Amino acid sequence: MPLSARNRIEGTVKAGEKGDVASTVKIEVTKPVTITAMIIKAAAEELSLKEGDKVEAVIKATEVLVSKD
Amino acid sequence: MPLSARNRIEGTVKAGEKGDVASTVKIEVTKPVTITAMIIKAAAEELSLKEGDKVEAVIKATEVLVSKD
Amino acid sequence: MPLSARNRIEGTVKAGEKGDVASTVKIEVTKPVTITAMIIKAAAEELSLKEGDKVEAVIKATEVLVSKD
Amino acid sequence: MPLSARNRIEGTVKAGEKGDVASTVKIEVTKPVTITAMIIKAAAEELSLKEGDKVEAVIKATEVLVSKD
Amino acid sequence: MPLSARNRIEGTVKAGEKGDVASTVKIEVTKPVTITAMIIKAAAEELSLKEGDKVEAVIKATEVLVSKD
Amino acid sequence: MPLSARNRIEGTVKAGEKGDVASTVKIEVTKPVTITAMIIKAAAEELSLKEGDKVEAVIKATEVLVSKD
Repeated sequence: MPLSARNRIEGTVKAGEKGDVASTVKIEVTKPVTITAMIIKAAAEELSLKEGDKVEAVIKATEVLVSKD
Repeated sequence: MPLSARNRIEGTVKAGEKGDVASTVKIEVTKPVTITAMIIKAAAEELSLKEGDKVEAVIKATEVLVSKD
Repeated sequence: MPLSARNRIEGTVKAGEKGDVASTVKIEVTKPVTITAMIIKAAAEELSLKEGDKVEAVIKATEVLVSKD
Repeated sequence: MPLSARNRIEGTVKAGEKGDVASTVKIEVTKPVTITAMIIKAAAEELSLKEGDKVEAVIKATEVLVSKD
Repeated sequence: MPLSARNRIEGTVKAGEKGDVASTVKIEVTKPVTITAMIIKAAAEELSLKEGDKVEAVIKATEVLVSKD
Repeated sequence: MPLSARNRIEGTVKAGEKGDVASTVKIEVTKPVTITAMIIKAAAEELSLKEGDKVEAVIKATEVLVSKD
């Protein structure tokens, strides 16, 4: 199903924890992936991001959806 | 620097696009990673998520921060 | 009160669940509404979105605020 | 495709606007829907949310994904 | 208007930038404020957060709504 | 560590609450800060935001990360 989200990362459920209202799920990703970020232009300039830079993609767990076929 | 975000994924900037206010950055990740998601418990139950399940982590590009040392 | 959020959808609380830190609320919406999404341009092109297309607006429950007069 | 997102709202693309990096899409929803929100418990208590309350679901456009079959 | 969002921070518009689809707004806040974060319990434990700790609240600009009376 | 997030607000942990999966943290901010928001251009125009306007930055607690040195 085509979806506007730029990041759809395949993996395997490794662990999970159930709370009363929320749960956490850990997904193991072994294949290489590309992560797309949209950031404020001023941030890209301040970090002077350019091809080849070593960076980290930082993502809060509350922002991750899970899809299962 | 310790950070509460559960997902800090190391990679290399591969490409980018500059807009007037926002920019996009593509980050190539080659090492295996684990992605943590926090979802509503009812969602975890509806998907009947369990260890070993093949799933996708779906993340909108606007939710990804970039960190550079 | 004017608010920058593009989507303010009127409804009626139907059910709720209280956790220790977080709660869920279900809101029944019976009037027709228009939902505005901001997505990466490349996503709009990939989905070739055009007037008249049948689509789904997908929203994680953690992203919804509740306002009450 | 089962997806953890609690809100999948069917509609029809009505209008759109293309920017250099980001686009907006307006989706007309005519069927009744139920919107699920996850909020801090203290917020639910402060608003004293209860069945039958008239409320608004407030959602920023950047938080909305679009899916098309 | 009561709103579930825990953080409503009063300030004065200082500057802004208009793009084709998105805009940025800078808001100067001079009064002391309290910022509430909801994070995964494991993150709070890993950072061993306790009263009196010096910390930073990190917030992506795309997550900030603006309200004006 | 340079980070793309536009808002990094220094403060002191004042209180916290631990749930089964999620926790809340209250951070006291006493220094003046500037908050940057990215909003849809149509929203900025509708609110007719201009320098000197008294506004509120509205941020859901789930969107706040915590960083500790």
